[in-house]
Amino acid sequence: MEQKKIFLAESEMPRQWYNIAADLPTPMEPPLHPGTGQPVGPEDLAPIFPMPLIEQEVSQERFIDIPEEVLKRYLIWRPTPLYRAYNLEKHLDTPAKIYFKNEGVSPAGSHKPNTAMAQAFYNKISGTKKITTETGAGQWGSALSFCCSLFGMECKVYMVRISYDQKPYRRVMMETWGGTCTPSPSNETEAGRKILAENPDSPGSLGIAISEAVEAAVSEENTKYALGSVLNHVMLHQTINGLECQKQLAVVGDYPDVIIGCAGGGSNMAGNSFPFIRDKIHGKEIDIIAVEPASCPTMTRGPFAYDFGDTVQMTPLLPMYTLGHGFVPAPIHAGGLRYHGMAPLVSQLILDNLIRPEAIHQLETFEAGLIFARTEGFISAPEANHAVAMAIREAIKAKEEGKEKVILFNWSGHGLVDMAAYEAYMSGQLSDYDLPEEEMHRAVQEIAPLPRPKQYKPGTIS
Amino acid sequence: MEQKKIFLAESEMPRQWYNIAADLPTPMEPPLHPGTGQPVGPEDLAPIFPMPLIEQEVSQERFIDIPEEVLKRYLIWRPTPLYRAYNLEKHLDTPAKIYFKNEGVSPAGSHKPNTAMAQAFYNKISGTKKITTETGAGQWGSALSFCCSLFGMECKVYMVRISYDQKPYRRVMMETWGGTCTPSPSNETEAGRKILAENPDSPGSLGIAISEAVEAAVSEENTKYALGSVLNHVMLHQTINGLECQKQLAVVGDYPDVIIGCAGGGSNMAGNSFPFIRDKIHGKEIDIIAVEPASCPTMTRGPFAYDFGDTVQMTPLLPMYTLGHGFVPAPIHAGGLRYHGMAPLVSQLILDNLIRPEAIHQLETFEAGLIFARTEGFISAPEANHAVAMAIREAIKAKEEGKEKVILFNWSGHGLVDMAAYEAYMSGQLSDYDLPEEEMHRAVQEIAPLPRPKQYKPGTIS
Repeated sequence: MEQKKIFLAESEMPRQWYNIAADLPTPMEPPLHPGTGQPVGPEDLAPIFPMPLIEQEVSQERFIDIPEEVLKRYLIWRPTPLYRAYNLEKHLDTPAKIYFKNEGVSPAGSHKPNTAMAQAFYNKISGTKKITTETGAGQWGSALSFCCSLFGMECKVYMVRISYDQKPYRRVMMETWGGTCTPSPSNETEAGRKILAENPDSPGSLGIAISEAVEAAVSEENTKYALGSVLNHVMLHQTINGLECQKQLAVVGDYPDVIIGCAGGGSNMAGNSFPFIRDKIHGKEIDIIAVEPASCPTMTRGPFAYDFGDTVQMTPLLPMYTLGHGFVPAPIHAGGLRYHGMAPLVSQLILDNLIRPEAIHQLETFEAGLIFARTEGFISAPEANHAVAMAIREAIKAKEEGKEKVILFNWSGHGLVDMAAYEAYMSGQLSDYDLPEEEMHRAVQEIAPLPRPKQYKPGTIS
Repeated sequence: MEQKKIFLAESEMPRQWYNIAADLPTPMEPPLHPGTGQPVGPEDLAPIFPMPLIEQEVSQERFIDIPEEVLKRYLIWRPTPLYRAYNLEKHLDTPAKIYFKNEGVSPAGSHKPNTAMAQAFYNKISGTKKITTETGAGQWGSALSFCCSLFGMECKVYMVRISYDQKPYRRVMMETWGGTCTPSPSNETEAGRKILAENPDSPGSLGIAISEAVEAAVSEENTKYALGSVLNHVMLHQTINGLECQKQLAVVGDYPDVIIGCAGGGSNMAGNSFPFIRDKIHGKEIDIIAVEPASCPTMTRGPFAYDFGDTVQMTPLLPMYTLGHGFVPAPIHAGGLRYHGMAPLVSQLILDNLIRPEAIHQLETFEAGLIFARTEGFISAPEANHAVAMAIREAIKAKEEGKEKVILFNWSGHGLVDMAAYEAYMSGQLSDYDLPEEEMHRAVQEIAPLPRPKQYKPGTIS
């Protein structure tokens, strides 16, 4: 019988993370202090992150040991299986081999615990008692609550108001793991009160929630802040995914021609692709595709510029593709892809033509999700359906070209807590949305006065 | 590092199911025709089941080959991992080793696809175009929809009205896999119309939904009915679980002293324990515990008698522990355990002292669920929490006795689609419920006029 899943034994799980900063063809430009405009130093970050994570954020070491206390807890769901999508291949009648990495087997149902567990650990050993964070759709907040519970730490999550109301199950997941969850904007922080004063019915945004979580971390004792994507150390922790994939594909003697991941802040696609991008830097031909929603076209239409990570401009300025820190994306169901910026590492790799960004419309992603569920069985998170849809496009292209390509995509999580999105799709309530040019211009205006990176690249609006 | 999960390679997945009917110390009494009171023959079952399943229902063969088309699709989630619950052991400070079999990794999130896939296959090769079924909480309906979609068959699910309203995500799961889901009682069947005429606001019950699904199967062409528990062939298909466990425990050189499963219709505990009960029949000392809710005490307080599987008395009379076919259990959150009867095979093994039934109150199960989530990470289905709670009891007992027991429990599924139950628990809205003696007497009255099995055993109300 054909092998469906490639497992690694626990003893084969990678013992190190891969740090792509050591291999970048073009060095990254530094984050800048929001007040001074000068490069931030460790002392600027110390109020919100524990020192081991700050060290990882700036590390140039190629491989970094995963602490044993993290490895032990990774074993709850790792190594994750790599699947061969035979049924999908057959359905598409494609000569391509399609593999997907199933990150949905974690207790939280997504890839997020890969970094949440590491961040919880480094905070624990640094004396942190409580971690604050923000969450959009709730994947990150629930993952961090899960990981904090295993280290006996408090977890406080500011959840974007509209998601808090629409996705009560996510809040209950956080509470089941002992976390607390507050809708954002809230009255608990100055940032929240300011927004509420202007608009008491604010639906919130990821940017606002970040502001609240950072403020809460700074103002409470023994409290730090954690971010679920965007930053270098988050990308680092996610690379265990791609390192596993490399071992797994070696078992069956395959190597990917195309690698696909959906990208909101960038961490799941980074985690899966970075170890392969190392090979690409060394000459391997691989097409690495980052997929974003057409309604939030950060990578495909935004400029590469310095911008804030949050709405109220508390975070350092990061060199990245951005739609402007005040950008409010359309309410598409892939909540994890509704972010105005993109990880600086992913952004840099796009600039260097090592990652190719693509945008996909919402309806195509759900159509792909139904095909996937009815062939491979698993119901994807709306975010993951962006990767599924692109894999289907590439498989069809392979058929048209008559090429036996190997396609690998990262299946970042299941959608069993997102069934309302499927209902909306199947009942015809969803539509596609292209960000109008004027709206994009307006959003990008607000970053114009900020410092510009040397590699500044204006938005690519046609 | 300690091994957390024991995986089997795909090549080590069992190729046969185990049929405990071949090893029963006391032969089972036959099902009786609801009209004539005579033992049912294959011809009586042919209108609702395909012949290969009818043959399995009465087979005395000890091992039955799993067809390759089923094996191939089992590989989507099988072999499932066996976990060692180190963190839970540490939390309880117990000398016991606790193992749990994680059946939550299937696309539907539970053990149900083990039989759904087999039933879909046998129907497919018998020319069935459409399968009807009932579902309570929705686990079974979604599992069957998933499996039918992989065989390109229609699936029609009658879902208990109250669950249909309370658990829309389950319905959407079925629809995502291409199934259709109708609240029961419905106007589509005579059985449904009869109930609605008496009570237009009927919340429905599993018994009513079974009646509707059977009626629909009988009255439409190329349509058969599928049952997710209770029957012999369902128990058979589930045994792949226990057969895997035996191989997995052999890897680490352990053998269980205690095996625990929750029991509604009986199939998940049967699937996990039957291969071990074979050893018990041959002299091994194992305590096999079937856990039910105290509010639906079929095994611990009901009589062993002949009773109908459904409310409107269409199914054959089965020799089983029962609370009477008209019994309406309290609305506890473990929907899968709200059934008036118990699988005849499980019932027979209880009579023969090979399975020990226990009842647990709702609050204890949710308390156990929180402990489990915060130590082992996974959020259990409310049904599975009955097994978790009993495992905790046994681990504490082992500590009190100072015994190094090996405890194995079946973790039948995750609870990510059941978060409303956790919310109700954590906000203090749940309470315990003991079935009053009078109510039980009343429920059991209706089975008094039915034929009695030779081994008739009155209810054990104290």
